[in-house]
Formats: sequence, C-alpha cells, structure tokens
Amino acid sequence: MKISARNVLKGKVKRIVHGSVNSEVVVELPGGMEITSIITKNSVENLDLKEGHEVYAVIKATSVMLASD
Amino acid sequence: MKISARNVLKGKVKRIVHGSVNSEVVVELPGGMEITSIITKNSVENLDLKEGHEVYAVIKATSVMLASD
Amino acid sequence: MKISARNVLKGKVKRIVHGSVNSEVVVELPGGMEITSIITKNSVENLDLKEGHEVYAVIKATSVMLASD
Amino acid sequence: MKISARNVLKGKVKRIVHGSVNSEVVVELPGGMEITSIITKNSVENLDLKEGHEVYAVIKATSVMLASD
Amino acid sequence: MKISARNVLKGKVKRIVHGSVNSEVVVELPGGMEITSIITKNSVENLDLKEGHEVYAVIKATSVMLASD
Amino acid sequence: MKISARNVLKGKVKRIVHGSVNSEVVVELPGGMEITSIITKNSVENLDLKEGHEVYAVIKATSVMLASD
Repeated sequence: MKISARNVLKGKVKRIVHGSVNSEVVVELPGGMEITSIITKNSVENLDLKEGHEVYAVIKATSVMLASD
Repeated sequence: MKISARNVLKGKVKRIVHGSVNSEVVVELPGGMEITSIITKNSVENLDLKEGHEVYAVIKATSVMLASD
Repeated sequence: MKISARNVLKGKVKRIVHGSVNSEVVVELPGGMEITSIITKNSVENLDLKEGHEVYAVIKATSVMLASD
Repeated sequence: MKISARNVLKGKVKRIVHGSVNSEVVVELPGGMEITSIITKNSVENLDLKEGHEVYAVIKATSVMLASD
Repeated sequence: MKISARNVLKGKVKRIVHGSVNSEVVVELPGGMEITSIITKNSVENLDLKEGHEVYAVIKATSVMLASD
Repeated sequence: MKISARNVLKGKVKRIVHGSVNSEVVVELPGGMEITSIITKNSVENLDLKEGHEVYAVIKATSVMLASD
C-alpha cells in the first residue's frame, strides 16, 4: 500500500507505554533522532509492535508545523 | 518558548513552493531524511523562512501514525 | 504496508480538483457515501490518482469527531 | 449548527470503550463499514452517546489521507 | 447538532482570503483575540461565510498544543 | 522560538486531569473563554504545568473548523 502522507520515516521501536485506550510509542530514527507517536492500544496489537521492530512513522504534511529561533 | 509537542526536529529549509494560501516547505534533517510541511504562506513570511535557514519541524505525537511492512 | 490508522475505507476516486499546492479528491464509498480529502498535488501524482481508480481513505481515529442531533 | 468539515457521515454507535481521559467509539455506517473515533470521555457524556444511538462522524478534509495498492 | 469537539468559540468573520482549493478565514473573538482557520473554499460557500457574520471556531482538544515561556 | 502555527492564545491553566498516557488541560483565556487541550502526561511534566500558570494554547490553522447556526 502506497500512502499520500508525504512523510514516511523508517526507524525502530524504542519504547512502548500502554494507557487504557492509547499507547505511546517512541521510534528511533537513523542518526539517533526520536519520534513519539500516540496511537490506540488496539493498533499496537494489530501491527504487533514490539521494541526493536522496524516501523515507519507516517505524518501528513499538514500536521507538520515549523519553528525558528 | 517551550512547546508540548513531543517532536521538535532540527533541520534546514531545502525547498519552498508557494501556493495562493498555503506553502509547501521541505526540511532536510541531519542524515539526509526530509520532512515536508504545509503551512500558510503568511507563516512562511512571518518566520522569514528561506532556503538554507535553520528550522524546527514541530509535530504533535497524536499526528504521528505508525506502519509496518 | 499495514498502518496504525484505525480507519481504512475502500472506495473509488470520483473527482479531483487541483489547486496550486493542494488538491481536493472526492472518494465514493460503496453505498454512495462520499469522503472528501485534501492532499498535496504531489501526492496525487505520486499515487497516480485518476477518476475511477480504486483508493483507500485513511483516517486516524483521533481525527474523527462525533456529533448528535 | 452547520459545520465546515466536509465529511459528516451518519451512523450508529456500535461500541464504546472508556479510558481515563479518552474514549474509543466505534460507529457503524450503513452498509456495514465502521469508523473508529477517539474523543474525550467528557464528550461521550456531553453527547450522551450510548450503543445503538444515531451519531454523525465528522472529519475535516485535511485529516483524510489516501492510499492505493 | 451537538459536536464532540471540546472547543466551540463564538466570534465574527473578520477577513476571508480565497486560494484555489483552500480559503483562510480570520475570526475575531470577544475581547479582540483572533483565530485563523483554513477550510476549503467549498465550505466557505456552503456556510455562506461573509465578513461580519457570526461564526463558531470548532477545535478538537487533541489539536490544541500548549507552550510556556 | 517562533512557531508557524497561526493561533497562539495566552491564558492560564485552570484545571489538569491526568490519564495514564494523556492529560486534559483546561486553559482560561482573558474574557473567561476556555480552551481544552489533550497533551501527553509527559508534556505536562516537561512544561511543568500547574494550575494558575501562564500558558499559550497553540493551534494550527488547518485544525480549526468553522460552524454557523
């Protein structure tokens, strides 16, 4: 499946914290940067996400803000 | 200013394409990955964004989806 | 690719209107309901979307509001 | 009230799972498709949502991504 | 129609700028604060928005970030 | 840090409710209007948010819908 989201960044699951409905998943990108994602706990199970697994962070371009110093 | 968005990634403006209301800004991260952002043309002017400038991509954790192969 | 977004709805491209940066794509679902999507013009080209093509509307659960009469 | 969101889909509440702050609500559309929504538990109470109730799923067009095989 | 979005702020349309697909609408809140919204040009027409008209800015709680100095 | 988000509204933290992953923060704006935000519990801690503290609600223009009666 090919998706319209302009940002698809490959990384590895570094850490997962489960809440009651949502889970927080930290993804480590090459170079050491981290991306944090909140998805439903159901989705973590559907994707069978586990620490160390390869994963893509997918972000729609309109969800990306920019900031400068 | 410190922001609640969990993802603040430092990079450089690589390319800007202006539309009538929105602009598309491509940010190059260290290591060569790119992040594409759609913000208003007004914001590009307010931040005085230009190619080569340092910039932060700011993404709320709930806007990040995950995908696996 | 399997995505964490909880909503993946299969339909057909019914209409595409191009702007300078963004495009509006109307997807017809089985049963006649329509879903309208705004994605970048680049994404329309990358996905090679055309009227009549099969397509999936992908929506993160946190982006869905509910309303009642 | 008439809303700018381009996508307003009528359905029925099929299932509600409560977390501590957020709740997950599954809406069944005519034809059997389902839409999952994450809203605050407070909103579920304010709208008095219950299984079987009629409800509208409301989605802004910029929140809809597209994908193709 | 009652909506799950936790933020429904009443104001007046102050300014509308049309793009080819999207429009930028500035809403003035009581007390002089302004909220800027990007919606499709179609939605501006459907809601028949014009300068001076009463309007509600509707924002899902997960779309609100917080920042401190 | 200057951000591209068009909406940066100054207020005071009125109430914080913690979930397991997310927290709900209510911000009171001048004039008495309230904005509700859902951010991660980690962010509440990073920003050291407490009732009575000054805070900015930051909202991207594409996340603002409009509604009329």
